Amino acid sequence: MIKPRTPPGVMELLPPDQIAFQRMLDTIRRNFERFGFLPVETPVMELSEVLLTKSGGETERQVYFVQSTGALGKASEGSAGEGMPELALRFDLTVPLARYVAEHEHELAFPFRRYQMQRVYRGERAQRGRFREFYQCDIDVIGKDALSVRFDAELPAVIHAVFSELDIGAFTIQLNNRKLMRGFFEAQGIADGELQALVLREVDKLDKRGEDHVRETLTGEGFDLAADAVARILEFVKVRSTSHVDALAKLDALGEGNDALREGVAELREVLELVRALGVPESAYALNFSIARGLDYYTGTVYETTLNDYPQIGSICSGGRYENLASHYTKSKLPGVGISIGLTRLFWQLREAGLLGNASGSTVQAMVALMDGQSLTDALEIARRLRAAGINTEVQMEARKIGKQFQYASRAGIRFVALAGDDEKARGVVAVKDLLREEQFEVPLEELASTLRVELEQYRALAGR
Amino acid sequence: MIKPRTPPGVMELLPPDQIAFQRMLDTIRRNFERFGFLPVETPVMELSEVLLTKSGGETERQVYFVQSTGALGKASEGSAGEGMPELALRFDLTVPLARYVAEHEHELAFPFRRYQMQRVYRGERAQRGRFREFYQCDIDVIGKDALSVRFDAELPAVIHAVFSELDIGAFTIQLNNRKLMRGFFEAQGIADGELQALVLREVDKLDKRGEDHVRETLTGEGFDLAADAVARILEFVKVRSTSHVDALAKLDALGEGNDALREGVAELREVLELVRALGVPESAYALNFSIARGLDYYTGTVYETTLNDYPQIGSICSGGRYENLASHYTKSKLPGVGISIGLTRLFWQLREAGLLGNASGSTVQAMVALMDGQSLTDALEIARRLRAAGINTEVQMEARKIGKQFQYASRAGIRFVALAGDDEKARGVVAVKDLLREEQFEVPLEELASTLRVELEQYRALAGR
Repeated sequence: MIKPRTPPGVMELLPPDQIAFQRMLDTIRRNFERFGFLPVETPVMELSEVLLTKSGGETERQVYFVQSTGALGKASEGSAGEGMPELALRFDLTVPLARYVAEHEHELAFPFRRYQMQRVYRGERAQRGRFREFYQCDIDVIGKDALSVRFDAELPAVIHAVFSELDIGAFTIQLNNRKLMRGFFEAQGIADGELQALVLREVDKLDKRGEDHVRETLTGEGFDLAADAVARILEFVKVRSTSHVDALAKLDALGEGNDALREGVAELREVLELVRALGVPESAYALNFSIARGLDYYTGTVYETTLNDYPQIGSICSGGRYENLASHYTKSKLPGVGISIGLTRLFWQLREAGLLGNASGSTVQAMVALMDGQSLTDALEIARRLRAAGINTEVQMEARKIGKQFQYASRAGIRFVALAGDDEKARGVVAVKDLLREEQFEVPLEELASTLRVELEQYRALAGR
Repeated sequence: MIKPRTPPGVMELLPPDQIAFQRMLDTIRRNFERFGFLPVETPVMELSEVLLTKSGGETERQVYFVQSTGALGKASEGSAGEGMPELALRFDLTVPLARYVAEHEHELAFPFRRYQMQRVYRGERAQRGRFREFYQCDIDVIGKDALSVRFDAELPAVIHAVFSELDIGAFTIQLNNRKLMRGFFEAQGIADGELQALVLREVDKLDKRGEDHVRETLTGEGFDLAADAVARILEFVKVRSTSHVDALAKLDALGEGNDALREGVAELREVLELVRALGVPESAYALNFSIARGLDYYTGTVYETTLNDYPQIGSICSGGRYENLASHYTKSKLPGVGISIGLTRLFWQLREAGLLGNASGSTVQAMVALMDGQSLTDALEIARRLRAAGINTEVQMEARKIGKQFQYASRAGIRFVALAGDDEKARGVVAVKDLLREEQFEVPLEELASTLRVELEQYRALAGR
């Protein structure tokens, strides 16, 4: 007898949670499609040689390699050189997107808007809340040769639509621009990109270590920055806007500056104006000059999204603008802008914080009960009518105590229980118990399906779903 | 520069095909849920020790093992003994279901109806139409201790609902029963299960090799069966019913027989009656006494489904009743009945046969065009209205020649193009081109979204979607 168990670092759900998770996936997908993004799925296995184009790095050390039974032990066969197996599991959706766009470049229309919602794999250290298998929900817009900054404004509109409908509380989409940051740092005499990165890493510790500690580090040995430059940096990274007008004012306040700063300011200004034109309320977005994201990758607009009441959860949706998606695979220049939602982690955190309340209820909407002596054929006929009307219906195939059947429906989150005993059958009606409203009523068999359908649609409309 | 490419044996689709594929997945899922099945997803990686409970066998030789970078080369570490890596990719959804049900036995309500639609992995020989990564769409009903044969009747109803809505042509759900077969073979003096299997394997060659060849083999050396027994076998496996009444008559014609035969006949009779009560038209199901399926696994009802006009595609949905799901993981007896659709292979075959015609059209329903000089803000406002009404809308973020924009929409399968130049704006209207009906009309901005919505819903109703 083998103990049934999953490997560490994966999230497996019981049906009620799986239903809640699936609803979140559906909501995200619906909104991605609402904004014109097209679906792409890629294989979970990529050729190692294709996947691992960058040498070294944290990501590569976390890669899972794949070998068929036959290839195991034969180091030379089925390997991509230096003993590396031929196949590996994707660790994100960005490298597969780059490979996909480069491979199918001549079959795609640009700008190419794609969404992809699949699992990715990382050999993380096993730790609570860290996952080795997790969903990423990504959208990207890829241009050929060039991509207007206007597209950078679409993504906050999608983020707003997704998280409004997910209904997990107030959130803020925080915007910054890497050019603006670069320009500002250059103006402080920090022109070197790597030094900027090191300074930003220190600045990132503001919340944890406090301002004094960061100031001491930056003015101290190693950095040797001038005190007034450090003061200006600390002031800069604290900038947050409180409204649309305030955001524009904060940009104005940066003054003329150098080319990079001016370009960054102009881009952010255009993004802000179009985000507003797309109908995103100004309470949902703000400038935040401390947002940097992956410094070696993003080159323009960058995004992070945080839940106003749960800042400790960190960014729930991040991304930005990059210069060239697929330089390892094609000579074409493919600039893009994208965002990613790590849904497995988000779901886990929301559940930990008790924020999944709105997602209750089964996919099953009605149950047909079966009483002793009642013909199963009658119950199946009721179910047939409900299903034909688009109502998800389960039938009790075997008679049990009626109390047990109601208890089962209630625990399972099924809203309606329909029942037609001899008495009801003789009168041509069905008895219905509405477990949500805690009401009971009778309805002619002919009107059963349409009646329940109206109830379900009213509820959906009320709940805004 | 690395050549961007996928590994052999995977199916990666361009967006139009991906949309068609996704629609099939959605249709299958919708119908699985319609019949009260609950969603389950399991990790793609299982512990090798848990996954590979059966020793040897074709399946095990095709397993993909997974190792993180750190575990590679360290044979002893992260291995499950005998140099077998600790993790492996699932090769079907049945073993993960067994593990899941055994692991969560006390948290599930039985009978447990679950659906699961995920990819599985097999190290198949690379060959056209053979996939190493493919979707399986499974449903199973699992009982605790016992499961009434009544549940065996639900699955043909689900199969009928799924394939009717998939709209890929007439199909027949073929039914048989392992007990009935066993009883029949015993009556012919073939009591041994393995010999029955060998005979059935020969009988399976009827279509390819012809009746004479099979008769000679079975009466010849090795089998040494009596000529009259072989004649009865060949007659038996040719039995097909042509209607509901005919199916019952064919069962009656088998006579009293032995216990196994009687039990099989009684089960099939009950399944047939309930399948009819569930509203499945009699043209969609038939007895077929040659259906055997996996002989070491199924013990009662067995199903295969074939497209009437494309028999060469083979079974597109198969399954049956099994005695005990999870004997490797739990002492509880968990009988079940299930079916599986191999969607990747089915999609590939339908595409090869040119049968995907009905699935055309983008997920994008409307495109807002942008003319030179027109304000992008106006276009975004039109898009905002359409999206708020639930219409999937793409905006041309940059003005191009208007002809190019229409051409793009047409090629992409987008139905509506909305356009508001200076003239339209002045009159408060939007010009709409309906690329499906090849019509053009103007509509007040306020009525645009509701007008398109009505058109889309009418079309959906007409197309029966």
